This record gives sequence, structure tokens and C-alpha cells, in this order.
Amino acid sequence: MAEWVYRFGGGEADGNAGMRALLGGKGANLAEMASIGLPVPPGFTITTALCNAYYAEGRALPPGLDAEIDAGLAHIERIAGAGFGDPDHTLLVSVRSGARASMPGMMDTVLNLGLNDETADGLARASGDARFAYDSYRRLIQMYGDVVLGVGHRAFEELLEREKEAHGYRLDTDMEAGDWSRLIEDYKALVRAETGSDFPQAPREQLRGAIRAVLDSWMNARAVTYRRLHGIPAEWGTAVTVQAMVFGNMGGDCATGVAFTRNPSTGDAALYGEYLVNAQGEDVVAGIRTPRAVSEAARPASGTEGPSMERAMPEAFGALKAALGRLEGHYRDMQDVEFTVQQGTLWILQTRAGKRTARAALKIAVDMAGAGLVSEAEALARVNPLALEQLLHPTLDPAAPRRVLARGLPASPGAACGKVVFDADEAEDRAARGEAVILLRTETSPEDIHGMHAARGIVTSRGGMTSHAAVVARGMGRPCITGAGELRIDEAARECRAGGAVIAAGDVVTIDGTSGELLEGAVPTIEPVLSDDFTTLMGWADHARRLRIRANAETTEDAGTALRFGAEGIGLCRTEHMFFDDERIVAVREMIVAADADGRRAALAKLLPAQRSDFAALFRIMAGLPVTIRLLDPPLHEFLPRTDAEIAVVAQAAGVTFEALRARIAQLHETNPMLGHRGCRLGISYPEIYEMQARAIFEAAAEAGGAHPVELEIMIPLVATRRELDILKAAIERVHSAVEQETGSDIAYAVGSMIELPRAALRAGEIAESASFFSFGTNDLTQTAFGISRDDAASFVGDYERAGVLPRDPFASLDREGVGELIQIAADRGRQTRADLKLGICGEHGGDPDSIAFFEEVGLDYVSCSPYRVPVARLAAAQAAIAQGGDADSLKEDREG
Amino acid sequence: MAEWVYRFGGGEADGNAGMRALLGGKGANLAEMASIGLPVPPGFTITTALCNAYYAEGRALPPGLDAEIDAGLAHIERIAGAGFGDPDHTLLVSVRSGARASMPGMMDTVLNLGLNDETADGLARASGDARFAYDSYRRLIQMYGDVVLGVGHRAFEELLEREKEAHGYRLDTDMEAGDWSRLIEDYKALVRAETGSDFPQAPREQLRGAIRAVLDSWMNARAVTYRRLHGIPAEWGTAVTVQAMVFGNMGGDCATGVAFTRNPSTGDAALYGEYLVNAQGEDVVAGIRTPRAVSEAARPASGTEGPSMERAMPEAFGALKAALGRLEGHYRDMQDVEFTVQQGTLWILQTRAGKRTARAALKIAVDMAGAGLVSEAEALARVNPLALEQLLHPTLDPAAPRRVLARGLPASPGAACGKVVFDADEAEDRAARGEAVILLRTETSPEDIHGMHAARGIVTSRGGMTSHAAVVARGMGRPCITGAGELRIDEAARECRAGGAVIAAGDVVTIDGTSGELLEGAVPTIEPVLSDDFTTLMGWADHARRLRIRANAETTEDAGTALRFGAEGIGLCRTEHMFFDDERIVAVREMIVAADADGRRAALAKLLPAQRSDFAALFRIMAGLPVTIRLLDPPLHEFLPRTDAEIAVVAQAAGVTFEALRARIAQLHETNPMLGHRGCRLGISYPEIYEMQARAIFEAAAEAGGAHPVELEIMIPLVATRRELDILKAAIERVHSAVEQETGSDIAYAVGSMIELPRAALRAGEIAESASFFSFGTNDLTQTAFGISRDDAASFVGDYERAGVLPRDPFASLDREGVGELIQIAADRGRQTRADLKLGICGEHGGDPDSIAFFEEVGLDYVSCSPYRVPVARLAAAQAAIAQGGDADSLKEDREG
Repeated sequence: MAEWVYRFGGGEADGNAGMRALLGGKGANLAEMASIGLPVPPGFTITTALCNAYYAEGRALPPGLDAEIDAGLAHIERIAGAGFGDPDHTLLVSVRSGARASMPGMMDTVLNLGLNDETADGLARASGDARFAYDSYRRLIQMYGDVVLGVGHRAFEELLEREKEAHGYRLDTDMEAGDWSRLIEDYKALVRAETGSDFPQAPREQLRGAIRAVLDSWMNARAVTYRRLHGIPAEWGTAVTVQAMVFGNMGGDCATGVAFTRNPSTGDAALYGEYLVNAQGEDVVAGIRTPRAVSEAARPASGTEGPSMERAMPEAFGALKAALGRLEGHYRDMQDVEFTVQQGTLWILQTRAGKRTARAALKIAVDMAGAGLVSEAEALARVNPLALEQLLHPTLDPAAPRRVLARGLPASPGAACGKVVFDADEAEDRAARGEAVILLRTETSPEDIHGMHAARGIVTSRGGMTSHAAVVARGMGRPCITGAGELRIDEAARECRAGGAVIAAGDVVTIDGTSGELLEGAVPTIEPVLSDDFTTLMGWADHARRLRIRANAETTEDAGTALRFGAEGIGLCRTEHMFFDDERIVAVREMIVAADADGRRAALAKLLPAQRSDFAALFRIMAGLPVTIRLLDPPLHEFLPRTDAEIAVVAQAAGVTFEALRARIAQLHETNPMLGHRGCRLGISYPEIYEMQARAIFEAAAEAGGAHPVELEIMIPLVATRRELDILKAAIERVHSAVEQETGSDIAYAVGSMIELPRAALRAGEIAESASFFSFGTNDLTQTAFGISRDDAASFVGDYERAGVLPRDPFASLDREGVGELIQIAADRGRQTRADLKLGICGEHGGDPDSIAFFEEVGLDYVSCSPYRVPVARLAAAQAAIAQGGDADSLKEDREG
Repeated sequence: MAEWVYRFGGGEADGNAGMRALLGGKGANLAEMASIGLPVPPGFTITTALCNAYYAEGRALPPGLDAEIDAGLAHIERIAGAGFGDPDHTLLVSVRSGARASMPGMMDTVLNLGLNDETADGLARASGDARFAYDSYRRLIQMYGDVVLGVGHRAFEELLEREKEAHGYRLDTDMEAGDWSRLIEDYKALVRAETGSDFPQAPREQLRGAIRAVLDSWMNARAVTYRRLHGIPAEWGTAVTVQAMVFGNMGGDCATGVAFTRNPSTGDAALYGEYLVNAQGEDVVAGIRTPRAVSEAARPASGTEGPSMERAMPEAFGALKAALGRLEGHYRDMQDVEFTVQQGTLWILQTRAGKRTARAALKIAVDMAGAGLVSEAEALARVNPLALEQLLHPTLDPAAPRRVLARGLPASPGAACGKVVFDADEAEDRAARGEAVILLRTETSPEDIHGMHAARGIVTSRGGMTSHAAVVARGMGRPCITGAGELRIDEAARECRAGGAVIAAGDVVTIDGTSGELLEGAVPTIEPVLSDDFTTLMGWADHARRLRIRANAETTEDAGTALRFGAEGIGLCRTEHMFFDDERIVAVREMIVAADADGRRAALAKLLPAQRSDFAALFRIMAGLPVTIRLLDPPLHEFLPRTDAEIAVVAQAAGVTFEALRARIAQLHETNPMLGHRGCRLGISYPEIYEMQARAIFEAAAEAGGAHPVELEIMIPLVATRRELDILKAAIERVHSAVEQETGSDIAYAVGSMIELPRAALRAGEIAESASFFSFGTNDLTQTAFGISRDDAASFVGDYERAGVLPRDPFASLDREGVGELIQIAADRGRQTRADLKLGICGEHGGDPDSIAFFEEVGLDYVSCSPYRVPVARLAAAQAAIAQGGDADSLKEDREG
């Protein structure tokens, strides 16, 4: 067997589908198809190992390669019954790249190799179609000139345009055989002028040049960037496939098309596809001609006109149907197949796992597992967890036209449409009158919560994926766009400029939180329906996963949503979020601005009953499940009154003068509130705050009580030292003893620590001496590890992505190398101290599949995410568990392939 | 030899000064003094091991101890020629604590043990002084009642007051023997009523009770707190010393006093001290009677009246002088000695290394090394590096009265006095007219720099030890107080409230930057004079140290100061600090607010000549030395124009409208600027900024050139990923090539990275692939590791210190456990990649001795600090190197002892 060259075709192949690493995705699949007897044009694949050898030797091809290529060509010639360079029975070949992972359009391709002055004439004669032959030849010169010889594509296009103008032609298809022949002479002259040499007439020389060019394209700038962005190592290399050309444009008995083994939109188990008679593959893509449906059954629904392939070419259709059936059965997945019919004969050019909608992915996975075609584990791997979220939210009708007013970050998925409002109160008022509204704000703060809840969707011009607006909207399941920097929102004037357009209050807009687009007018949306397939797949996921899934929730409404979506507890109850309604926020502000402990106690006394009844309601709904309550953690700036009106309200409630309160607020102003007087620092400075909260929790536990009390966990935020935890834990225990005595109840509870500061991660060994559990606050940990404020990142994160500094937003997907190491260190050191330390994560990463895979690797006990992410997390956890058990890489390829 | 008890006295001792760990400081020194023949009252010390055994057994004394105590008592009785409980020759003993490290006043003491109804009468007879005897007895009951029996001190005092009132006495000394006898009966009744038992008459029982009480006091709340604050392990335990009492208050041939072997203020090698005739030790301290000078020579200077001890008690003085000489020679350090003369006989009660001023410390260390009494290394260890800074700045006259208006953080040492101003421009104007001014601001920003420079001192009501005001003031050598939260500064009204007082513009105040006190009026200051001793000691330090010392400096003035103080290069040139004058700040603001690259380029073109000439001047003065230039790193908020007037100036300079500029500023507003668009993020977003700076640097290097070019290091701030460094390094190299070509110069340079983010520390291995050097930015690293903003820490850091969470401000002294581990990780991983990686630190910790000790341990190459800290750093580095070479613990004890 050859060292570098793997042949395929004629019912046999040297390789197979398992050799993706060596032959690339395309080469491996061609080999596989050939060996199971499908009609694949013969060819051979040069391995990725050759690519590596090529670069290792400073871009030199190894000596033995030429002989192997000759043998490969002989193999093609034998099966095709034609000769490379033979004017009478001329063989044309293509040279294509093919990496292990798909890198669409990043590398180069050369078609029609083998044509020269002599064989072009031969092809014209043999095919009886001179126009086709010379068009093919000029295409070769143009493509080869661009890719191999470095003559700009544009120069060729200009010559073509000039030729068309000279004849008054509008389309390329207007060009006659003679026109192409003349243009070929112009093209050859151009190549000579630009390179100093003639366009190579020797087919062997053409082939060598094309192979080199494809190898070189592995290192071109866009491929390098693409690899960096997608984490593809340069050492993987590309394979090069040389294959006999077939033509769908040689007459009325020729065609080309794309077919799916199942419907990629719905997942229905019926052949689906489009084709064009007498056309080339690129004509299907170019959209100049309207393709027709492949199968008769799909014709009405597809909205295409003209006869289906099933009716027009029954024999070829029969062959295609059989091939598709074999392919799906063989690959055990829905396939996306490119085919060509040349003079009545079907050729399969490519097969790959077909892209599909979330709905289709779900149905196909469940159907195939039901049919025994794939295992449950494989079915789980076939569904992209993030796509699941589409199923839970309304989506925009893909067929509807859309005009984009502005783009921002896709902060919370789903689609919604309504009238623009710029004020939370107005949102609430209009919603109360039954109007659908979209809230536009520069940014949101806790005082906007009621308006966010009333709105169908939220748009902000500032903030990132974990800004206040984003976090709250995801929690509520409202679609949300953040950081739409083009918007100039003038809340006072109740209008907003977006580029040239002005959006006034009351204008109707639509937002697509999945794409981050703000759209003009009302774009029709599609409501979600959860299918039985969803329930089935989730059941399999729950069986497969090791990680427990909890939700971040404060209200009974959110907790109910979380339970409905399968949450197994609450991993983060942000007590400050329980203070958002109009009445409570005043008391909270009163507490924060109080000048002394007495002032704080007066405000806290107002909050205690509310906290207690909220907790009691939460404990009842979560009966028997774990509930982790985080004590107050407000960065002060989110809670300070801002406007004079707000100050006046708080001043009156607190019984102080307006002036005194304003002075106090100025005193509390912080330059960097995220690094300020927040978290457990408040608990240390103002012990009465956490004491009130502990009392509310324990009294609520005593009140809710019952046969199935919650598994109560009290969590201290922003711990940097063990001593902080010790002090606060002792204070909580004092309240606990008092409440047990007062109520006569036994209330079991545990105290744990957030790990959200690098220092806490490093000192986890000693913190674990005092903590029963850790919950990683990956938002803050990312902020501090990177020194990037999530509120402010939007201003440069775009530049960073463009420069390739941040391949992915580290607030959306965990930075394994940095933040991940801190988590690993903390987990290791914490467990060293306390073997049964419970470990969880409650940052935004709890709902991100890639991050969940990491948490599975580190061996956390649970992840906690927003209620609408719970199904995503359940599936991602299942995939992570399967990957940990088996071969992680192959699973990933499965999803990418 | 006994297990738990070490005897001393009569010219012998079981222990010696080296047994500090076992016998405590006091016990070890008593043993040492006894064994070298000094007149020490006999006694014995119960070891710290007994203390540990006591606690290990749940506060039970081991069975063998009683017998050992009996033997110890017999030893004392034999030497003292008196009996414990013998009414005719009664022996009284004291029981005192004595830990390895000094814990002044934290633990308990009981005196006069052995007195009861019978021995008190005997002592009255034998001493012929009934008043003395009964006063001593009632003191025992009171002290024993309080310390051992838990009867409150207050209850005894009330009885005494009642007795005095009954007689119309004002002072305790008015009480007669009979009065004391009556009071004794009242005291005994009180004990009986409170405890249900009689005051113990058996001396042995008294002794056991006192020993237990002293052992128990090791775990009292204040001792536990003190140990935590000073890092003293509980396992060290306390020793207990039982010693025969001697009395300086038995008549005119008795006296008590304190003497120093050298002058503790000036360091002059002459006996110095005070004494009182017929008095007890506590009378010297209480200040009721004015003590007299010990030596005749010191009498005039001391300002005391009455005869010196040298004249009044020549024999005892002779004995004392001889003893002091022996002690200093023996301990090889200046000693602080307590003595008592009982009926003509001198007794030495305690010796320890004497506290001294910085000036005295320096002189004593150099003199002793000169005399061969100590080695140079020992001399270096004897001087506290931080105290050195006192010598460089004016200090307040310690004798002058002071009234404190407010307290803040001692942000920059030294003292200054002047008229209050609230505005930087006014500061400059008044200073230009020759007035001394003190600038009071809520906080400072770059626009205040000219005023800070013009002022003699700066006070801010906000900010911590590393706030803008603090950092800039230290760099300039101006005294500064920050975070004086009591001050309510109303800059508009030009007045400030401090508690009840109002400070108006023009009022004269004095600031003590060493203590953090703002004082009323003009308090006299003392100007610094650098002695030859300073130069000598610095020379020894330079010889002993391994770490190189650089300075943080931008101006030639600061660089000159740094060189004068011995800096070996510039470790941090903050280029944004070069933009502070009125004209440049406008261009800087113009650059920052520019809406596009063209706007930025226009502003940068204005800055280039200024940067170039500043760099060229710096390079000339630093010829031949390393200069590390940090590219622009402004947290945006420090540079944005704030007032309408400032916006108007910048708008005009930039040629944009006021409104447009105001909108742009609003767009640039950041919630957490410290975590925002700063550092190398600006360099990535706006490449033209760093390109301009690189050009200015290289052109300046070409211009300054010469035979001794600086060792040029360009440093990239706020790196989180290797990719950032790669991108910016490539850009710098492009500019470098261009400038070399344009100027025809060869310009050597290196590019390195700040390590100031936790992620950078963790990824140091790959960052080192691209960086030639690391400079740890410990300010930012502390901010991000702890999640604490240095601007905002003042609001809770006080609570944290009180709660024992932060034993020391981590911005002042490096947090070894957390931030230190990040530095260690980065140093290890960086050197793993690049063995010759140069490592330095340029945060505020570069001037802190304890932090420097850590940097020595980690093996950094250099530290960089503000110019006025350079001598501190040189000495601290020498001590650290010596400690690394020898026994670090012993050096520390040396300094503490």
C-alpha cells in the first residue's frame, strides 16, 4: 500500500470513515461510500501526514510522492475509462482540501484540471458541446491563475466583463463557444503578462501545482484565524483529494442537486431536496435558476415549480433514493448529500451529517433511537443543547422579511414584538392595559425590574452578556438584546436614534434575542410547543448525567418554571432580587443609606416580614429539595437612589432630611462598585443585615416546616478569607439557636462559601475548614481573574474578538485556562481539607454546555442556571458524562461533522 | 535539673538568654543577668512548655509541679535569707507572665504574694514602716482579688474612695497605716461577699492561684487578639516568673528608676535615665512626682530639677553604671533597664533592647559596628527600614502640643504646615506668591497634580493607601493623609467640617503624614539632616543585598531624587503621568474622547514631541541604567473631562461641538473603570496610541544615544493573555524598525509584560514565551485577587481591621498567602519557560520591608519603589538577604526584642 495516497472508487477503497484524522472528513467519507458500493467518481486522497511532512520540510514534497500520484491517476483512469491528457477520452480531475474538522471555504479548490488547448478541443468533440468544453477550460485558467499562480481573480473578471460588453451580453450564459475561445486567448495572455510564463499545458504540471496550492492554503491567513477561533490545532493538517470530474451540465439527461435523508426543518423521515437539470453545483447555490423538488411528495410543500426529479428522471431518482437509504443506515445519522447525474448516471459527490433545526434534531435523534439505529447515548450527542433553548421560546418566522434597525448581543433568546417604551413605569402601565411593550433603556437597574417583567422583551445600549439586563431577562425568560451600541437612547425625550432612523415611544419593533437583532415593525413569531420527543430525550439525559441541575431563582414563579423544566433544587437564591418591588426597594435603600446601626435596624424591621414570607413560599414549593440562599450581595451602585424624586421618597421613609440623605449618598459613592463595599463585607460592617436575613430564613423554615423540609444551605458571598466566613457563620449560628428556641423547631442547615475571588480559590483549603459547601461564582471569578468588568466589557470586547484575543466571550463560556485553573485549584484544595465538600457553580456559565463539560471534568456536584436553561444544562450534563466515560474527541467531531 | 522550673539568682541560673522560647523574654534575660553576676532578685521561671501542658490537659497543672515550685521557693528563701510565710523574715514574691515575643500589658501580674494578716504585721515590725506594710497588703488583696478571684477592680477602688472621702483625703499617699488596716478589713469582707470564701491566708495557696491566673491570661480575649494581629502562634505559650520582691519605697535610702545605656533620642553613647527616691516603679510611670536625672551629665539637658542619682546616691549609681556597661557589652545592644535601690542596695529588675528614634538607631548601629561590638550584618538588622523614611522628611517636634482635627491613613510620611486651600489652581497661585499651603480635597485626580506639587501637603477625605493622592504624594515626597472620613469637604463653599470644627480656606493647619493626623494651627517641625551614619549604613546595606533597587519615576526631578537616594534604574515610568500639565492634559483628553482613529491621530501628533523630549531627558539622566517604560494605562475615569469648562476646552481643541463631546463622554462612562477599557486594551483597540509612544521612545533613545545608552525596557500593562502581548510587541517592533531606518541608529530594547491580573499569573508560562521580563503590578494584583478596589477600600477596611479579617492593609503590605502565591506561581512558570526571565515588582509594595522580604524569598531580580522609599528598600533588601542566608526567625526576634 502507498505511503501518502489512499485510493477510492470502483466499489473499493484503501480508507474508510474512521480515518478522518488521516484523510480528512471529505476523503474518509468518499472512501467509505466507495467501499460500500455507492457510485462515487474515482479518486485518491493524499493524507494529512503528507501535509505535516510538507511543512516540516519547509514546504517541500517528499520524493516518493510523484510515483504515488501517478499510481493514483492510473487507478482513476482505469475506472473512468479515460486518460489524463488524452484528447480523445480526456479525464478531468478536481483537487480539494479536506481537514479533520469542517473549515468551510477557508482553503482552496481547483476544478477541471487536465484541460489544455488540445484536450479542450477533444472534450468539445467528445461531448458534442463546444460551449461547455471551452467554458470549462476558461474556468480552469481563471481558477488556476487565481489559486496557483497568484493572478488576481478580479483581472480575469474584468476581461470577461469586457467581452460581454463587446457583445452586449448580460449573463455569462449568453456567451457562445466562440466567445469563450476568444476569452481563453485573453486569459492566457493575462497569465503570461502577470507571471512571465505561459499557462501550463501539461496536465501533470497542472496537477502538481494545484496540490501544492491546496497544501499552502492550510496556512493562509483566514485558515489560521479560523483555526484559532475554533480551537483547531495546526498539526491536524489538511488532506488533499484528487477526484475524477463529473458534469451535470452536459445536457437534458444531466442534473445536479442536494438531498437530505430526512426533512432538516421538521425532522420528518422523508427524503427532502432540490435539483436543477443541466446545471453545475454552483448554479444551485447561486440562485439564478430556481431549483425544483427532488421528490414528488415534497413538491407541494416546497413551493417549487416544475416537475420533481422523481417524475422527470425516475431511474436516477430511484438510484438516489437507494443511495440515501444506504447512507443514512450506514452512517446512522441524517445525511446531507451532494449528487450529480451525468448523462443519466448518478454520482454521489459528498455526504455529511446534515444541519438541522432544533426541532428536527430532537425528532431525528428520538426517532433513530426508537428505531434502534442509534443508542440513547448517541441520540443525546446528536442534539446541540443550546439549540434546545429555541424550543422553549417563541422564534421569528424564518420566512418573514426583516429590516434590522440595530444589532447587539444575543443576551436572552426568543423573539417578541411590541410598542417601544423608555420607562419601566410606562411599561407596567401599558402592559396592565393589555399592550405588548418592548423596553428600551441605556442600561437597567433593580428599579426597572417591574418594567422588565411587564415588557415582552428588553433592549439596552450598554452592558454585556452578564449585565443586569441580561441576567434578569434570562431568569425571567424574556428575550433581551444588550450592548446595542449603535442605539442612542434619549430616555428623557422618549426617543432613540439608530443610525439614520428615529424610534419613538409607541413605535412597533420586534426583537430577536437569539440573534441580537432589533427589527422594524411587527415580524411574525412562532410559539413554542414542547413535543413528546423533548420529554423522551430529557428522560434519557437525566439517566445519563452525573451532575445535578439546579436553578437560579428567587420567586415562586421562577421556582415553578425551574421545576417544570426539571430543576432538582435552587442553587442560587439572590436575596437582593427579592427586594425589587416598589415598596421594598425603599426599605432596602433606607437600610443601605442609613447612617448608623439604629437606622439600619429600623429599615430591616420593615424587610423582615417580607423576606420571611417569600422564603416560606419558596420553601413550600421546593419541599424536599436543596435550596441555597445567598445572603445580601448588592454592589452598592445598583441600589442607591439616583434621582431627586427617589431620594425624597427614601428620605421621608427614613425620617431624615433630603440634604442629609444626599450627603450620605455622596459619601457612599464608589468608583468601582464591583470591587467595593458589597458581599460579605456588608455583613461584617453591618452585622444586623445578615442577622435579619438569617432570622427570616430560619423563621420561614420553621413556618414552612412539614414532612419534607428543604435542604437548607446558606451561602456567604464574596469571601476572600476564612476569617470572614468564621465571623458570619458564628453570627448565623447565634440567630439559629435563638429561632430554634423561640419556635421549638429543629432546623437543619449548612453554611457555605461562594468562591468568586481568586484569593478565595487559592485559600480554599482553609476556607473549607469552615464551609460545608462551595459554590463557584464564575461571573465574579471571571471579572477578577481577567480584571474585566462585565458592565464595561462591551466597549472593547468587539476589538478583542476581531484581534483573536478572546476566541469566545469569557463571560459566556468559561475560560478553562485561567478561570478554570482557579476552579480546579479550589476544588482540589477544598476536598483535600473536607472530602465530602459539596461543590457547585451558580454563575452564568452554569447554563453553557462547554462550561458544563468542564465542570463535569472537575467533578463538581451540581450546576445552577436560569430556569430556561435547565433543559440545556440537563442535556449538556448528559453529554459531558458520556464524553467523560468514553472518547470526548469523537463525540465533539460527531456534533461538528 | 527540674522539668518545669528554671531557677536564677545568687550569681547562677539554670537558664540563659538563648532560652527565650522556653523561658520567655523576661525569664531568659533574668537568668542571663543572674548568671553573669548582676544583682538580680532571686527567683525561678516556669517554662512555656508547662503552659502548653496546662492547656493540653484542659487547664490542669501536672502532678510534679508543686514539688518543683517548692524547690524553687527554697532556692529563693536561701538566697534572700527570708521565709515565704515567715512573719519575722517574710519573703514576698511577684508572679509575672513572660512570652517569647513582647505582649505589653496583655497578660496578668500579681505582686506582694506572701502577705497575710500575720506576715503583714511582721513586715510592719521588721521594716519599721507600718504604712508601707499595710499598703502592700491591701494592694495584694486588691490585685489578687481582681486577677485571681474575679472580684472587679472597681469594687475595691470604690471602698478606697469611700475611706478617703471619710477622712477628707485627696491622694492615696494621705492614707495612714491605720487607715490601710481598716481598709484591709473592708477588702477582706468584699472578697468574702463576692466569692463566698475568705481571702486566702496561706502563702502557698496564694502562689498557686497567681500562677494559674497568669497561665489563664494567655488565653484571655485581648491576648488572643493581640497574638492574631501580631502573628504570634498560640503554641508559643507564656512562661511564668516567680521572683523575690524588692522595694524602692522603704525610705530615703531607697529609689527606683529606668536607665538606658545610650541616649534613645540621639544615640549618644552616654548613660541616660530617670529615678525617684523612696518610690515604687509605678510612681515613675504615674507621673505624680517628677523624676530626676540619673547622671549628672544628663541633668541640665534633661530639664529635671533636684540632684541626680550620681550625686545623691553615688555608691548605688556606681553599681548601676557598672551594671549598664556590663549589660550593653553582654547583649551587644543598647539596653533599657529597670532598677530598684532597696536600702542602699541596687537590684536590676529587667533588661531589654531599648526603643529608640530612627536617628538614634542609626547612630547606635553604626557606632557599635565601628567599635566592633556587632557585625555589619547585625548593625543592619538593628535599624527598622521604615523608620529611615522619618530621616528623609521633616518631622513634628515631639515636644510641641497638638490638637487633632481629624485622623486618616498615613499615606505619605513627613510633616508640613500651611494655609488650607481647596483647589489646585489656588494652591499653585498661593505657592507662587510664596505661601505655604495644604491642599484639602475629597479626592485628587490628574488635574490636581500641579496643585499637589505646589502644596506642602495633601489631605483627602476619600481613598486608601494606594489612592491617586497617596501614590502621587509619595512619589513627590509630600506628606499626605488619605481617607480622613470624618472630614466633610465642601470644595464649592471652600470650607470643611471636622466633627464640630469648621476649617475655612486660609486657616493654618499642620499635617503629620507619618501618623495620619490633621492638626490645628502651626505645629513646629524639625528639618531632616542626613548624617554620615546614614551613608555608612547604606553602604553596608548595598554590600549585603542581592535585590536591585529601582525607582518609580517619570520626571527628571524624581529621577534625580531617586539617583541621589541610590536607585539603580527606573522600574516604572508611568507614561500617563507625563501628561499632567495643563496643556498636555487637553491633548490626552482629546485623544481619549476622539470618536475615531483620525481624531486620535491628531491628538497624538500634539503629544509626540512632548513625550519624545521627556523621554530623551530621562534617558540622559539615567544613562547606562535600566529604564522600564510602561505604555499608557489610564483607567478612563481619571482622564475624562468632568466640568463643563473642561469639556469646552477639549471640544475646542478637538474641533468638535460641546454637545457631541458631552455625548461621547457619556458613552465612555464606565461603571467600574478599574476593570474597564484600560491598559493594553487601549493598545489593542487604538493601535495608534502605543505606536506613537513607541515612536517617542525610540526617537528619544536615538536622540539621547551617547556612549551610555539606557537599558531600555518597554512594558505592556494589564496583560491577561499571551495574544495581547504578541499583537502589541509586533506593533512596537514595526515602529522600531522604522525609527532605526529613519535615524540610522541601533536601538537595543526589550519588551516585557506587567503581571497584574490573576489570569496573567496563572498563564505566565506562555506569556513568558513572548516577554523578556515580568514586572509584578502588585496594586492591581491585590485589587483583583481580593476583589477590592483601592479607591473604595477605605469604607470598610476599618471594620475589617477591627474584626481581625485583615491583620494588615494588603495594599500596604503584601498578602503572602493569596497574592504572594500568585507571584510565586508566575515566577515559577515564567522561569520554567525562560530561565533568564527578568523579574521585578513595581507596585507600592516595592517600598515595604515585609513585602521586600517576600520578594527576596521568591528570588525576584529587583524591586521598584517611589524615590523617597529607595533607602528603605535598600536596607530592607539587605536585611532580607541576610535573613535568607541565616536564620530568619532570630533576626525578626532581634528586631522585636
